[in-house]
Amino acid sequence: MRFSKMFVPTRKEDPADAEVVSHKLLIRGGYMRMVSRGIYTFLPLGWRSVRKIEQIIREEMDAAGALEVHMPMVQPKELWVESGRWSQYGPELQRLRDRKDSEFCLGPTHEEVITDLVRGELSSYKQLPINLYQIQTKYRDETRPRFGLMRGREFVMKDAYSFDLDAEGALKSYDIMFEAYGKICDRLGFEYRAVEADTGNIGGSRSHEFQVLADTGEDEIASCPSCSYAANVEKAEIQIGHAERDDEVLLSTAETVNTPNVGTIEEVSAFLKRDASEFVKTLLFMADKEPLAVLVRGDHHANAIKVKQMLTAAGKTVEELRLAGDAEVVELTGAPVGFAGPVGLDVPVFADYAVQTMTNFVVGANERDTHTTGVNWGRDFEVEAFADLRLAEAGDACGRCGTTFDFVRGIEVGHVFYLGTKYSDSMNAKVLDENGREVSMEMGCYGIGVTRMLAAVVEQNHDDDGIVWPMAIAPYHAIILPLQTQNEAVVAAAEKIYAELVDAGVEVILDDRDLRAGNKFKDADLIGIPLRITVGGRGLDEGIVEYKPRGADSFEKIAVDAVVARTIADVSAGLAH
Amino acid sequence: MRFSKMFVPTRKEDPADAEVVSHKLLIRGGYMRMVSRGIYTFLPLGWRSVRKIEQIIREEMDAAGALEVHMPMVQPKELWVESGRWSQYGPELQRLRDRKDSEFCLGPTHEEVITDLVRGELSSYKQLPINLYQIQTKYRDETRPRFGLMRGREFVMKDAYSFDLDAEGALKSYDIMFEAYGKICDRLGFEYRAVEADTGNIGGSRSHEFQVLADTGEDEIASCPSCSYAANVEKAEIQIGHAERDDEVLLSTAETVNTPNVGTIEEVSAFLKRDASEFVKTLLFMADKEPLAVLVRGDHHANAIKVKQMLTAAGKTVEELRLAGDAEVVELTGAPVGFAGPVGLDVPVFADYAVQTMTNFVVGANERDTHTTGVNWGRDFEVEAFADLRLAEAGDACGRCGTTFDFVRGIEVGHVFYLGTKYSDSMNAKVLDENGREVSMEMGCYGIGVTRMLAAVVEQNHDDDGIVWPMAIAPYHAIILPLQTQNEAVVAAAEKIYAELVDAGVEVILDDRDLRAGNKFKDADLIGIPLRITVGGRGLDEGIVEYKPRGADSFEKIAVDAVVARTIADVSAGLAH
Repeated sequence: MRFSKMFVPTRKEDPADAEVVSHKLLIRGGYMRMVSRGIYTFLPLGWRSVRKIEQIIREEMDAAGALEVHMPMVQPKELWVESGRWSQYGPELQRLRDRKDSEFCLGPTHEEVITDLVRGELSSYKQLPINLYQIQTKYRDETRPRFGLMRGREFVMKDAYSFDLDAEGALKSYDIMFEAYGKICDRLGFEYRAVEADTGNIGGSRSHEFQVLADTGEDEIASCPSCSYAANVEKAEIQIGHAERDDEVLLSTAETVNTPNVGTIEEVSAFLKRDASEFVKTLLFMADKEPLAVLVRGDHHANAIKVKQMLTAAGKTVEELRLAGDAEVVELTGAPVGFAGPVGLDVPVFADYAVQTMTNFVVGANERDTHTTGVNWGRDFEVEAFADLRLAEAGDACGRCGTTFDFVRGIEVGHVFYLGTKYSDSMNAKVLDENGREVSMEMGCYGIGVTRMLAAVVEQNHDDDGIVWPMAIAPYHAIILPLQTQNEAVVAAAEKIYAELVDAGVEVILDDRDLRAGNKFKDADLIGIPLRITVGGRGLDEGIVEYKPRGADSFEKIAVDAVVARTIADVSAGLAH
Repeated sequence: MRFSKMFVPTRKEDPADAEVVSHKLLIRGGYMRMVSRGIYTFLPLGWRSVRKIEQIIREEMDAAGALEVHMPMVQPKELWVESGRWSQYGPELQRLRDRKDSEFCLGPTHEEVITDLVRGELSSYKQLPINLYQIQTKYRDETRPRFGLMRGREFVMKDAYSFDLDAEGALKSYDIMFEAYGKICDRLGFEYRAVEADTGNIGGSRSHEFQVLADTGEDEIASCPSCSYAANVEKAEIQIGHAERDDEVLLSTAETVNTPNVGTIEEVSAFLKRDASEFVKTLLFMADKEPLAVLVRGDHHANAIKVKQMLTAAGKTVEELRLAGDAEVVELTGAPVGFAGPVGLDVPVFADYAVQTMTNFVVGANERDTHTTGVNWGRDFEVEAFADLRLAEAGDACGRCGTTFDFVRGIEVGHVFYLGTKYSDSMNAKVLDENGREVSMEMGCYGIGVTRMLAAVVEQNHDDDGIVWPMAIAPYHAIILPLQTQNEAVVAAAEKIYAELVDAGVEVILDDRDLRAGNKFKDADLIGIPLRITVGGRGLDEGIVEYKPRGADSFEKIAVDAVVARTIADVSAGLAH
């Protein structure tokens, strides 16, 4: 492709609203433009790379036996009412009404449509397993679209849905997808972790996120450097420390102290001159309509997801778990927010394992401007149960092997999810098993953020000058820069190399623009084409061109006659990588 | 692909709502399923064929120098207000509100988004011409979605937009697209016509529809068997007959006659015992706020599009031309609808050429239940101008060469449109020309209904048993039917042929299902795979398999060892076609 015939509007300045490097470079490199917040047009270079990512995903999905379909973006309300999500989903679900006032939504995901399809066509266990996928445009009305393609409203997603006769089969389908996702991440050259993730409100019990490591990632991951365990911090299992309390040191009584005008742990800690780790925070939650208190050490953070898991493990069915509101706190404790404490509190109290070994700690006194010191559990208040109820943090040890966790940030590019029968139950998607009994199909769903992957590649592959594409998804493999477009020998040599590379199937740009060398170099680096061939008059006199892989520190001199073969070899090696 | 691993839910019965054969066969063949009216899910076979059509279009667009981009489906209201279409577009434009109550629409087409993009990036004539295209999902809230993929609400479209410095360049871009569309239709094996089409309200003056010939088409086309002229009937230029009236035969006066309880031309014609061709119909139109009368012969049909063209040609700017409403007719004529006539009418009167030679005709008398006979123009009323103001119909002659038109029906699969500066003016999309003057870019837009093309192929390629795909877009090239899946020799021979064809890159299905031969034959014919290889025990004893192209009347016996080479040759020939 001749640069003069392309549409690559590069820019010198970062866009004003860009916070992360992928957003900046994809705009500056002429890969995309914003149409509305979280809504982008992909320009030719950007769309080429997106399509290459799509093709890699398609190949791996096909190889894994999944079948490609294409479902609509506009979905009828009725299906979402059946699954129960029409009311459960918040404003992120973009709703609309047609000319007849029928209600629809823009698909943020396609469980309803696929379950409706499959229940209409399959009737026997003999037709299972089946895994259907699509690469399609999704829409979610995000509260705060940001970071360019990382959290957009309209985006391209690959979503797959597996249907099996039983849980065993579903977990096998899950494993096949897990493996395919690894291959896809490998082919894109990602440094990534497959981390255990929360399964939220959805039934089933297995879920992994594929997290591409990047400081700009929105997720925090606890990753064990020793065993293979890695998990979203919300999910990460922390090693339970020594659980025996030293009862010898218990003070004889608790004491109430006045703590005027101090609210946060930091303020009380400074006021009482005691370390935050000597405090116990009391958090009031509402499990649907039922209040409960959760205690964590003053320097720890309660983890609602683990609280919910604990309740579920104890046999309670909880639809929604949330922090109690200000008014509820006043009603439950008799004091304003900031002074809750477990002593004399009339709700069930659960405590994090770290509280189990604490003695003579400080808690709120359920009275304005008042705390209680020298408090001990079992004596001053009862604990229903101790459990892992907090976020993992620096210094915590892996719950599986005890090695201290590393903490890294990640961009979630993929998510595999064992759904169980959540949708097949609510939408009555059943087949007959070997014994002629009707059973709900066991489902899994598997998503990849295709356009988010594009951003993630840039987050991991860039330098001060621009993007450094891996060969597999670079919009073009190579770029030829004839430095003097008035010099006939230069033009002729560049054209010859160009023609030979095109013939060899290399995707190559010839920068035939009448620009100064500096501008051509800047654009080539910014848009990040993997291989650069510079043709100049002085070099030609010596019989050479300058050859530089985008990531290399300096160029090599290569004989004019040898550069085509070298380029072809490097493209092949890069694609095989 | 093994049939047992595919998802091809064929059906015996036509869907209840299907009126056209493509709708019936695409449902019955397991190519697609309805999600909501005019909204479909493409199943694996259907999506494969859609993707093949997309790829053919992409190749021809790329070859024509167009650049692929990808614009969003959700578009902000502001851009549509700028172009003026937010208010002009009817309920077909699906509007929605986001969580902040901002308004958006689902793109039925992308002139606004592309013009906004281009005006932001281009500033000089040196950057022109440019042609940007996408293959993307569109949404139009059709009044009456019908005919399966022919008139859906959600559909895949290829839309391209060209930008040029001047009209000359724009028409060149237009011609390039026109040629590319021809190649695309040729590659899909269509029998089609590129017909001249109305340019409607949009500026510019050139437009062609690519019409695939089919009895089920929604459009009627007048096609000249002699010269190359073909046009939508609404647009078709009719040869002007002999224009001299024989004034010798004029009756001396007109006479008023009572015509009680007759309304239509047919009724009055029967009542007065005079042929419909002896009547002149008077139609009242409103050109924005201005009334006008149009006269056509009683057996002809007035054509609003030609009326508007005539007014435009006469230098009038008309936003909207419509038939006058009942109340307006009463106000203008003093009589109810059905009795309008030109005599004594106080609005400008225009007449079709066919009226020019008529003498002593019958018209409405502008009075209930009354007509006037023996009327002549020039004497009884004045005609502002004679022009071609009617629909072409059987017997009419081509306006270009005089040969009698053929009339055929067509499915519009493509439309090329020279837009002029309609959008660049309203949205201020300007560049500097060679003299440093700001000029609006000249635009063209070019659409192809990708999913509609799939239906059009089926309309032209089917028989009583099912679809007969052309090789280029068949979901698979060949299908192997082992008739006895318990016969080891049969299975082994089929597997060997399958493996060799897969190795050769042939897209082949092995029907490994344990079904009766009849069911396998029925499915193979229904889904329409171009080449069928039947492997049976008796044939193998003779060393042969049965080979049958889908459209052939009977099968050929081919040596087992020769069938792979023959299949490969036929696939190549079919793809080259």
